[in-house]
Amino acid sequence: MPTYTLGQLAEAIDARLEGDPEVTIRGIARLEDAGPDDLSFLANARYLEVARRSDAGAVVVGEDYRTDGQNVLRSGNPYLAFARAVELISPHAPRRPGIHSTAVVDPSARVSDSAMVGPLAVIGADVQLGERVIVGTATIVEDGVTIGDDTRLFPRVTVHEGTRIGVHCVVQSGAVLGSDGFGYAPDEHGRLHHVPQRGGLAIADHVEIGANVTVDRGSAGDTVIGEGTKIDNLVHVAHNVAIGRNTVIVAQVGIAGSARIGSHVQLGGQSGIQGHIQVGDGSRIGGQAGVIGDVPAGVEVSGYPARSHREQMRAYALFARLPEMLQRIKALEERLRTP
Amino acid sequence: MPTYTLGQLAEAIDARLEGDPEVTIRGIARLEDAGPDDLSFLANARYLEVARRSDAGAVVVGEDYRTDGQNVLRSGNPYLAFARAVELISPHAPRRPGIHSTAVVDPSARVSDSAMVGPLAVIGADVQLGERVIVGTATIVEDGVTIGDDTRLFPRVTVHEGTRIGVHCVVQSGAVLGSDGFGYAPDEHGRLHHVPQRGGLAIADHVEIGANVTVDRGSAGDTVIGEGTKIDNLVHVAHNVAIGRNTVIVAQVGIAGSARIGSHVQLGGQSGIQGHIQVGDGSRIGGQAGVIGDVPAGVEVSGYPARSHREQMRAYALFARLPEMLQRIKALEERLRTP
Amino acid sequence: MPTYTLGQLAEAIDARLEGDPEVTIRGIARLEDAGPDDLSFLANARYLEVARRSDAGAVVVGEDYRTDGQNVLRSGNPYLAFARAVELISPHAPRRPGIHSTAVVDPSARVSDSAMVGPLAVIGADVQLGERVIVGTATIVEDGVTIGDDTRLFPRVTVHEGTRIGVHCVVQSGAVLGSDGFGYAPDEHGRLHHVPQRGGLAIADHVEIGANVTVDRGSAGDTVIGEGTKIDNLVHVAHNVAIGRNTVIVAQVGIAGSARIGSHVQLGGQSGIQGHIQVGDGSRIGGQAGVIGDVPAGVEVSGYPARSHREQMRAYALFARLPEMLQRIKALEERLRTP
Repeated sequence: MPTYTLGQLAEAIDARLEGDPEVTIRGIARLEDAGPDDLSFLANARYLEVARRSDAGAVVVGEDYRTDGQNVLRSGNPYLAFARAVELISPHAPRRPGIHSTAVVDPSARVSDSAMVGPLAVIGADVQLGERVIVGTATIVEDGVTIGDDTRLFPRVTVHEGTRIGVHCVVQSGAVLGSDGFGYAPDEHGRLHHVPQRGGLAIADHVEIGANVTVDRGSAGDTVIGEGTKIDNLVHVAHNVAIGRNTVIVAQVGIAGSARIGSHVQLGGQSGIQGHIQVGDGSRIGGQAGVIGDVPAGVEVSGYPARSHREQMRAYALFARLPEMLQRIKALEERLRTP
Repeated sequence: MPTYTLGQLAEAIDARLEGDPEVTIRGIARLEDAGPDDLSFLANARYLEVARRSDAGAVVVGEDYRTDGQNVLRSGNPYLAFARAVELISPHAPRRPGIHSTAVVDPSARVSDSAMVGPLAVIGADVQLGERVIVGTATIVEDGVTIGDDTRLFPRVTVHEGTRIGVHCVVQSGAVLGSDGFGYAPDEHGRLHHVPQRGGLAIADHVEIGANVTVDRGSAGDTVIGEGTKIDNLVHVAHNVAIGRNTVIVAQVGIAGSARIGSHVQLGGQSGIQGHIQVGDGSRIGGQAGVIGDVPAGVEVSGYPARSHREQMRAYALFARLPEMLQRIKALEERLRTP
Repeated sequence: MPTYTLGQLAEAIDARLEGDPEVTIRGIARLEDAGPDDLSFLANARYLEVARRSDAGAVVVGEDYRTDGQNVLRSGNPYLAFARAVELISPHAPRRPGIHSTAVVDPSARVSDSAMVGPLAVIGADVQLGERVIVGTATIVEDGVTIGDDTRLFPRVTVHEGTRIGVHCVVQSGAVLGSDGFGYAPDEHGRLHHVPQRGGLAIADHVEIGANVTVDRGSAGDTVIGEGTKIDNLVHVAHNVAIGRNTVIVAQVGIAGSARIGSHVQLGGQSGIQGHIQVGDGSRIGGQAGVIGDVPAGVEVSGYPARSHREQMRAYALFARLPEMLQRIKALEERLRTP
């Protein structure tokens, strides 16, 4: 692993060093595990005391952390500064380009010389893999898929027919991209007939998708995931959904068919978005929220059915007092009955 | 792709044409993308204005859509009519039967001549694959599994030992059928001992199962999924569950052990059904509902704990007014205190 | 399959036989399906009448079941007694050790002679597989992974680089162990930069993990799953989470980053634990509960936001009466208005 002095690191990650510029950093560790060679990070105010007692060679902190002689790298955006430091100190091992002998690659596929195709991967007809693309072990890329430069598919990803993926994307293991959407038309006997799903899936640049996520193709047009959007594990995105740019979707969220999610939105873990709903830019949806109506831009909602987070929290606080409220109503009634 | 005139289509899908029977249809597109060669569909009243302004060659609509010179194919069941039209205009590519050279097939497996086994698929001992069965790339079919005619397993499906699948079924990528159920007996030290799961999994005809779904085998008898039932992505079906016919289970639903779900039931996305519960025929469970008691046939429930949807909606509407209600109680108390 | 008399079984599973010790048991079946050669089990008081009418050769029951001449095997811990009986009557087929010819095994991997590596499995550099380890069909074990004795990976598991798994563990199909955590630092343009995840994943002994589960590696230190903990299907465990011993996590639970879950905890299906939360030993979290604050040891919570289960149930019972409560407030106001 490369080593850096704190002075070099401060310059490289654009942070202000308070402390000894000659200290050498060789690794990354948690506050409680770090030694004098390690860089650490204060992720949450909960760990303030742990940070103070840490043996880390230096800690990346924000503007308001008070130090008492500890080496710190201070930044207005400490999380980003730390991310850059980790990339420097602990870079990913380089991958060797080439196609593994056990991969099954259709002769019509165009695989760039700098791409890597892992063992037992399967590449279909007319697939295009850009420069430095990594196709992990046992990943399946079906016919007609295009994948942009520097995109990495982890092992055991499934990319269905015709899906387009941009540059600098990451897709983790078990994700299924371009599955058939859930559309059934009942006949007069209540039997359900599948509506053929003939749309596609378009994933823009810098999108990252977690493990075991499912994203359905469109029914006629495309399902669309906008530039820079990040999706956590086990999320479900239904057919015809359109998601904007730089939106954050936490684990186990479900987005039903034809919903439109804006840009810079945050969807909390396990929240659910009903079909055909619009969620405005910059809105924040709380964990487990159930969104059954449009959400304007820039607001924060939570609960089921999702409403203003502030109002919900006020109502939830009173919820536990319902028995008491009923008692007080009864007492009032009693009092009025016998004047 | 095949082409049809509107006149031919109307007859083929049993819809009434209002407009020019000579217009030629070559594709399927969304209302907003469609051109004069495309057929489109009005899926939701939200898109009425989009439908009116669409350049589609024709739109499949229901009985109550008013047109002003636009070509429409009108039907009492427009979704089903549209599904049939898509199947005609944009049929699935035919698959070539045969076993790919990289598939690993046990010599005792009986694979019909018309079946297709994809690259790197694994077929175990004593497996039976019916006519025109498709086993996708890297799909695993373990020992003793039987799969009926015309069933299609997408790439990367796992079908565990002894599972029986009917005819005309579809299973999407990443689904795991026949996993071991979650049954543990604690000993006196709180250590948990797995109860061996020796039952099976029986999937009837015309069942469709989404991507990354998990269905556990029974512990002693079978887990059962009834004819025509459709299951969306990332659903969990625990051991010993029995599901009836033509039931619709939306994404990320969880059904706990030994629950019994009737026929023609709708389970909304992310809803959860507690173990050993009975859900009656034709009932509708709302999205994110938490069902912790039996549900009679034909009712609609929602919320947690799930109750009559109508009553829940009334109560949820008042929920946000809890602070106001408390204020009004306080005002009454105040008034009675100083007479 | 082996056969046992009831007398032999009673002794082997440490239960008290009431009935004929000479009856022969050849199989396991549900109460409603069982015949005179089958052993069955009363899992739930709901099935008391079914148990009474069962044709089973014998039923494993608890202390309070009243019998009227039926053969029963009685135990203070009937579920554990039944588990042992199933293991005896219906043991797993033995597996033949060895590496399948289609597996791709790095020459630097150390695979014990008693281990089994299935078809199309991939074993990376410096992997260590203990005695009697089973690596299922198409399972991927990346570089530097260590797996303890008697651990079984089902088909199609993904174990990412450097993960350590203890002895006697079970991991089911589709599980992804050691995926990259969901950590992004926004820059001043709202673009999200991935924070490299350089920690590991440490899974202790006797841990069992369900189908399509995802467990992220730590960001700096390890994600940790303690001894004897059992995890059901489709659960998500985020980076830096620490889970104690013998904890039970039911299907579709989500645990956000850096949460600390104690020992002997029960997490109900579809519940969600917010990041950086502490859940105390022996606590019980209800199905679908949303835990957004620390939970003390030994308590039972439910609902959203999760609070004392007893209080929540009382409040939920009144929830449906909100319209009535508002009416009663209005009536009181009316009465006071016109004295």
